[in-house]
Amino acid sequence: MSLIVMKFGGSSVGDAERMKRVANRIAEKKNEGHQCVIVVSAMGDTTDDLIDQANLLHPNPPAREMDMLLTTGEQISVALLSMAIHHIGHEAVSYTGWQAGMRTEATHGKARITDIQPARILKSLNEGNIVIVAGFQGMTEDGEITTLGRGGSDTTAVALAAAIQADLCEIYTDVNGIYSTDPRVVKVARKLNEISYDEMLELANLGAAVLHPRAVEYAKQYQVPLVVRSSFTHSEGTLVKEEAEMEQGVVVRGIAFDKNVARISILGVPDVPGQLAKVFTALADDCIDVDIIVQSGVLNGQADFSFTVSLSDGEKALRSINSIQADVKFREATFEDNLVKVSIVGAGMVSTPGVAAKMFNVISKRGVSIKLVSTSEIKTSCVIENTQLNDIIADLHTAYGLDTTEQAFVGGPSDRR
Amino acid sequence: MSLIVMKFGGSSVGDAERMKRVANRIAEKKNEGHQCVIVVSAMGDTTDDLIDQANLLHPNPPAREMDMLLTTGEQISVALLSMAIHHIGHEAVSYTGWQAGMRTEATHGKARITDIQPARILKSLNEGNIVIVAGFQGMTEDGEITTLGRGGSDTTAVALAAAIQADLCEIYTDVNGIYSTDPRVVKVARKLNEISYDEMLELANLGAAVLHPRAVEYAKQYQVPLVVRSSFTHSEGTLVKEEAEMEQGVVVRGIAFDKNVARISILGVPDVPGQLAKVFTALADDCIDVDIIVQSGVLNGQADFSFTVSLSDGEKALRSINSIQADVKFREATFEDNLVKVSIVGAGMVSTPGVAAKMFNVISKRGVSIKLVSTSEIKTSCVIENTQLNDIIADLHTAYGLDTTEQAFVGGPSDRR
Repeated sequence: MSLIVMKFGGSSVGDAERMKRVANRIAEKKNEGHQCVIVVSAMGDTTDDLIDQANLLHPNPPAREMDMLLTTGEQISVALLSMAIHHIGHEAVSYTGWQAGMRTEATHGKARITDIQPARILKSLNEGNIVIVAGFQGMTEDGEITTLGRGGSDTTAVALAAAIQADLCEIYTDVNGIYSTDPRVVKVARKLNEISYDEMLELANLGAAVLHPRAVEYAKQYQVPLVVRSSFTHSEGTLVKEEAEMEQGVVVRGIAFDKNVARISILGVPDVPGQLAKVFTALADDCIDVDIIVQSGVLNGQADFSFTVSLSDGEKALRSINSIQADVKFREATFEDNLVKVSIVGAGMVSTPGVAAKMFNVISKRGVSIKLVSTSEIKTSCVIENTQLNDIIADLHTAYGLDTTEQAFVGGPSDRR
Repeated sequence: MSLIVMKFGGSSVGDAERMKRVANRIAEKKNEGHQCVIVVSAMGDTTDDLIDQANLLHPNPPAREMDMLLTTGEQISVALLSMAIHHIGHEAVSYTGWQAGMRTEATHGKARITDIQPARILKSLNEGNIVIVAGFQGMTEDGEITTLGRGGSDTTAVALAAAIQADLCEIYTDVNGIYSTDPRVVKVARKLNEISYDEMLELANLGAAVLHPRAVEYAKQYQVPLVVRSSFTHSEGTLVKEEAEMEQGVVVRGIAFDKNVARISILGVPDVPGQLAKVFTALADDCIDVDIIVQSGVLNGQADFSFTVSLSDGEKALRSINSIQADVKFREATFEDNLVKVSIVGAGMVSTPGVAAKMFNVISKRGVSIKLVSTSEIKTSCVIENTQLNDIIADLHTAYGLDTTEQAFVGGPSDRR
C-alpha cells in the first residue's frame, strides 16, 4: 500500500463527464489498495468567468477580495469530485485549503506556502476516506484566505506530498508526460521516461508549460518523486526525480522556447561602479523580473548592456529605466520585441564538448541572428529573432538525436493552474 | 452614529447592475455616519445552478459535500459586493461564515447557529471598514462548513445583529415591506408600518414569504428591531418589534394563505390511552412536521382525527401512518390534497369578540366548506378547499377593514434564502 497524491488540472475536470472519468481513475487507484489524496484545480473556465464578473465591478479589484472570489472555483471542484466519488461507492471528504492545513504568507494573489498542518488529512485518510483538497489556496495565520498564484495547484500537490510523506505525487494533465519539445511544433518529439529535477526546472522555467517551476523546486527540495501523466489515457507518463537515467548518446534532454520575451538595451553607460546596481534596483522596485543579462566590453569609458524581461513587462521596464536616466547618465535605452528564447537542456551538457556550438550552427544555418546567449551547467539559451522558429526547433531536435517515430499525443489547452 | 446590519437577498444582487445599486445603497448609509455590517445571499440563480451541477454527478449528494458546494455561492457574492464598494471609494472587507465567527451545530444542510464570535467583525468595523458577511453559512466546532437551511441569510443577519448589539437590522428585499396580504392577489393590500414579532411570526409561519420564521424568532428572542424594506426603492418599509401600534379599528393585521397543505385523517382509532402518541411519534421519527391537529369526539369507543402536513410530506406521512396500522389498530387512513390554509392574524383578536365568526361567514358565503379550524391568541386558521381562494382573500381583506387605496409595489420572485 502506498500513499499517493494525485493532482488534476482544470481541463481534466472541465465538465461532469470529465469529472466522472477522474472519479473512476481515483477509484482504480484506491481499489489497488493505495491511500489517495487528491488535489484539484477549478473546473475549465471557472476562474476566467469569475475574473470577468469581478471586472464588471472593479477595473482593478483588491487582491484580498480576488482571493475570496477565486478560491470558490476550487471549492466547487472538490465538492463535486467528492460527490462523483461517493456515487461510485467510495468514501470521500473534500477540504478547502484552510481546512487542509495549508498555511501561507499574507501576500494575496501569489502567496507562498509557509507550513502545512496535515493532521486533519491524515486522520481522514486513516478513517478510509479518499481526501480531496482544493488546490491553489491557503490561509494566513490571521485566517485570511489566500491564493498561491500561477502553478498553485501543482505546488499544493507537491507540498502536500512532502508534508504527508507520500510515496509519489502524480500530476495528471492533458498530455502524456514531458516531451523533448512541444509536440504541437515537432511531430517527432519524444516522450521522456525520466527527467531530473534540475532539468525539469530548467525546462519549466524556459516555458515548457506542463509543470510550474515552483512545484518542481518544491519537489527537488523535499525529494518528492513526481510523475506527469495524462488524465485521459493510461500511458505511463514521465518520472521526475533526482537522477534521471540518460539514454545512450543523448546529451540534450529537451528543447524549450518562450515567445514571451522582450529585450531592453541600455547604451552608453558611464563605466563607474554601481551603475548596473542602480538599474536593476529600479527594476526590482517596480516588481519586474529580469531574465538574461549580458554586458559587452567597455569602450571609451562607456558600456552597453542588454537584458530580457517578459513581453508584458517590457513597456513598464522601459519606463522604469528611463526614469533613472538622469541618475545613471546612460545615452539611450532601446526596446525590442518580436523575439523568442530557444533553450536546450540536458544534465550531460557540461561534460560533452561542442553542444552549444552545434546549437549556434543550427540557428545560423537558417540565417537567423542570435541576440543574446546565456548558459548554465545544464542549459544553453539563445534569444533570437522570432522567425522560422518551428524550423529551428525541428532542426535542433534532429541535431541532438531526439527525433522519435512514436506517435505523440497532442492534447488541448494545457492545465497551468 | 448607529450600528446597522443590512441584509440583501439573492435577487437584490442578481447581476452586476444590481450589485452596484446595492453598493450605492450601502455607501449612502455609511455616508450618513453609520457603521454597516452587510449580509448577502448567493446571486440570483447561483444556488440552483450549483444544485444542478451536483445532480449531474450524484442523484442524492452527501449533505456535507452539498454544504461545501453551496457555500461558494455566498462567498462569490460577498467578494463581488466588496469590490463594488471599493470601486465607489469605501473600504470594505468580506468574510465567509466561518471567518465571521458563525458557529453552528454539526447538522449539514440545516444547521442551527450555536454561537457567534464577532471579535473579527468588530475589529474590522472599528478600523472603518464596511463588513460584508456571507449569509446562510457557518462552521462547526470541528471546522466543518455548514449551511443554515431555508431563510438562512435572514437568520444570519438577525443573529449577527444580536451578537454585535446592532441598533437595527434591515432586511432588503424585492417588496416594500410586510403587506396585509399578498399584493399580487389583493390589489388593495396595505403595507404595514409596524407589526409585532408575534404577528410577524404567525404570518411567516403561515406562508407569507418575506421573512423566514426562524429569523423572526431570533429577532424576538434577542429583541432585535427589524425593518423589512425594498432594495429598489427608498420607501420606508415595515418595522417589526415587540409591540406594534394598532391602527384605529383594525383588529386583524394580515391575511395569509398557504397552498402547501395536505390533510390526513385517521378513522376508527380505538379510544385507549397512548394511541395518538404512537401516531405522532411515528411521524416525528420520519421527520415529518405536523401543523394542525384536530380530534373530534369519541363514538362507540372509536375516535377520528385529522392533521395537516406540507403537501410534499403528504405521501410519506400516509406511508408512515399505514406502517403502524397493526399496532394502533385504526380502521382507515385517508389523504386529501387540493386544500389551502387561510389565516387571519392580529394581536387585537383575543380581546375582540366575533373576529373568527366573521371569517367563517365570509368563507361560507362563497359556498366553500371548512375542513379544519385552528386558533391561537393572535390568529385563526381555516383549512378549506382550494377554490375561489383569491375571492375569499379579497372578501376577508375587505371584511376586516384592510383595503387601502395606496398603490402597492408588486415585486418579482421573492428572496427567500
